[in-house]
Parts: sequence; structure tokens; C-alpha cells
Amino acid sequence: MLSKKVLKDIQSLGLKKHRLATGLFVAEGPKIASELLGLVPGKIRQVFATAEWCASANPLPSKVTLFEVTPEELARISQLQTPNGVLLVSEQWQDPLPEQQDGLVLYLDTIQDPGNFGTIIRTADWFGVQHIVCSEGCAERFNPKVVQATMGSIARVRLSYDKDDQWIGAQRSLIAASLDGLPPGALQLPAGAVLMIGNEGKGLRPELLARASQRVTIPKKGGAESLNAAVATGILLAQFSS
Amino acid sequence: MLSKKVLKDIQSLGLKKHRLATGLFVAEGPKIASELLGLVPGKIRQVFATAEWCASANPLPSKVTLFEVTPEELARISQLQTPNGVLLVSEQWQDPLPEQQDGLVLYLDTIQDPGNFGTIIRTADWFGVQHIVCSEGCAERFNPKVVQATMGSIARVRLSYDKDDQWIGAQRSLIAASLDGLPPGALQLPAGAVLMIGNEGKGLRPELLARASQRVTIPKKGGAESLNAAVATGILLAQFSS
Repeated sequence: MLSKKVLKDIQSLGLKKHRLATGLFVAEGPKIASELLGLVPGKIRQVFATAEWCASANPLPSKVTLFEVTPEELARISQLQTPNGVLLVSEQWQDPLPEQQDGLVLYLDTIQDPGNFGTIIRTADWFGVQHIVCSEGCAERFNPKVVQATMGSIARVRLSYDKDDQWIGAQRSLIAASLDGLPPGALQLPAGAVLMIGNEGKGLRPELLARASQRVTIPKKGGAESLNAAVATGILLAQFSS
Repeated sequence: MLSKKVLKDIQSLGLKKHRLATGLFVAEGPKIASELLGLVPGKIRQVFATAEWCASANPLPSKVTLFEVTPEELARISQLQTPNGVLLVSEQWQDPLPEQQDGLVLYLDTIQDPGNFGTIIRTADWFGVQHIVCSEGCAERFNPKVVQATMGSIARVRLSYDKDDQWIGAQRSLIAASLDGLPPGALQLPAGAVLMIGNEGKGLRPELLARASQRVTIPKKGGAESLNAAVATGILLAQFSS
């Protein structure tokens, strides 16, 4: 039986101000739980899980507190429409900005939709991108919708926020995803290149577009005016890594 | 000033049973409104818009009833977190199943997330796919979240539901997106090929997978276990059309 305080503490992590104040976040579902328990075991504080999940789970790290809960209790703390066996509370972490990067770095300019943001992190992980740098206007990494959309990749891709554009301002090989560039196959991809993806509605900020040494566009054959930001990122990463 | 009846009628279109009963659906925002007014003018019944939108809009088709509303009224009928100037009520329509298709047809097996479903329609439109066929387990085409995610492409790509798998059962050149296939470049793409995309969690149904003459997999370089269904669709369409 969960105490009122525990219930309230977990529910409060749905709000950004409480995530900021506590440095904690929530992740849900067996897939993401097993990824986080495997990748960042030292960060996990509490696991709330049904008897069914507990019966099939690997042994938990020693510092983790396990609460076995009923499906009804899980529904009360879950932020999902369909609660899925397990919810964990983890400490947040920070990754340093990339210094001398070897591989392609992904730069996100004001990607605001949490689902898009999380899907981009998952997609970058598929293609082996080691580091994502985000403008300050991007969604919050530990927003529950971001965490869910990453499907566990949140703990595998390093991600950092670029205060006042200091990091991006110092980069030289910038490639801008835009609507007026060359097809991916026509580009030169230098070591340490940064692929910049712009906001869902407005694209890249003009000052970033102006600084790009190359612009890349996914060739269009039909009628849609644009592609979803996560889909476009996936297509570019696939073509750059093939 | 909107009457209580009008308010209630529009709000009810958020529910599937009312969309089925009335044959109507709702679309919002200037981008989607202008696409639908241009592409299916005869289907639009009512437009609810702020003075600002009305001042900048093209003349409306003669059968459309225009209601100028305050931002507060729009917020009461809108299903968006941030209402965006205009909401229209349109009749639904049906597209026939493709018969002798020349180009690639996209087949969706139980794509349930409305955002994914709409994003796939938008992506197919970008790549000039003329027709999407959906299994009965897919999301509902006129669900407001689907409509919004298509960004207007809903009126440009023909889309039909395949009752009891009759259509897919009669197709011969099936290509399955799976996790154990060949890279896209190694495939033969015959005229009239059908690219099959599976459910977000479970992939394609085994009976569909068994009938595929080719399997295609997006090469993986990193750690993520899978790609989002809309991202994977975009990558495959980009590679097949390049």
C-alpha cells in the first residue's frame, strides 16, 4: 500500500518545476526499465512494479527500493494511458558538451515537441550518433514524454544543452537541414561535422542557417510541404551512414 | 456568439462514435485549413475562425458557412493545447482500394498511434506515394490527432482500409520491413510492389511476414533496439525513391 506522500511525490514529477527541484524523473514500461537498470543502475532510486513484473525481473541493484504495487496503484502513479507493469524513479544526469568529436554530432535547434525530441534521440542511437547538442529552446530531456519516446536510448546517447549558443558558435563544419539545399549524396561530410535540425514549424534560426557551410535537402517527389523533424533526421542519418 | 448546440456538436466530434454517426471530422490551424479548402472544397461544411484569420483568408467556397469567433470561443471548441486561428468541420470521404497500381503502395499493419499514423501519411505524400492501404487494426483516418499530424496530406494521399485482409491477400510483390532482412539497396523493386510496415511494438503479423517475397532492414550502427514506425517508413521511402 503506497503512502499518500509517496503517491504525491511521484505524481509531482509530471511537472517540470518538481523535476528541477528534485533532480529526479520518471520512466515507465518493462523495455525502458530494463534499459535504464542496465545502463545507469546507480541512478535508479525506486522501482514500483506489479507482482508479474517482479517475478520476471533480474535482480535489482542493491541501492534500489522496490515497491510491489497492485495494477490499481500503478494506474494512480502512472502518466501513461495504459500503465505497463513498472515505473521507476531515477536521478537525472548531465553529459558534457562534445570537445573533439570524431563522428557526426547532431544539433537540435528549438525542437519543442517532446515526442519528436525523444524519437530523434532514439533514431540517433540507432545510427550510432554519440552526441546530441540542443539549443536552450529545445524540450526538456527528462520530460516523461521525451523519456518514453526514446525507448531507453536516453541513457545511451550523450545529450547536452548549449548555453547562449556558445558551443555551436565555435563549430566550423556546419551542415544545415533546409528546404533549399543539395541532396544528401552530393554533400562532403568532413570529420567532426555537425548536422543541424531546425524547429518543427520555423526551421533553423537565420543566424545558424547563415553560418552553415553546406545545406542539405531531402528530395521531394510529392505534395507535402515538409517532413516531420524526426522523420527528416532519420532519413539524413540513414543516408550519411550508408 | 456560438450557440450551445454548435459548441456541443463540434466538441462531440472528438469522439469516434460521433464521427462515425455524423460522417464529419474536425481539422485545425491555418496550414491544414488552407490545404483542405484548396483540395476538397466541396467537403467543407463550416469554418470557425478568428477575425485575424478571416482578414487574411482567400474567399471561401460558396457552400461553406463561416463563423467569426473570438479566441476564447475558439479555445472552447479546439482540441489543440494552443488553438491556432481556425477550425473547420468537413465531411469524411472514402478512397477506393488500388487496383492496378504503377507505383509503390504502402501497406500499414495495425499502426495504432494516431501521431505515427498521420506522420506516415505526410511522409508518403512527400515521396509521392499515391496510395496507402491499412489493415483494419490501424488508427482511424479522421481521428483529430491523425488529421493534425498529416499537416494537410490527408487530402492528397489516397487511403483505404482492407477488410478481412482481402486486398493484401491478393498481392504478389510484398516487401516486409523487418529486423532480419537485406539493406534497402540490395532489393529488387518490381512494378506494383507493396511495402509493408508493421505495428509499433509487435511488427508485422507472422502471416504477412511469411508471404513477403523480400525482407528489408535499415542497417543499424548503434544501440537502439528498433526505430519509430514513421521514421523507418521515411527512411525506406527515401532509399527506394533515390
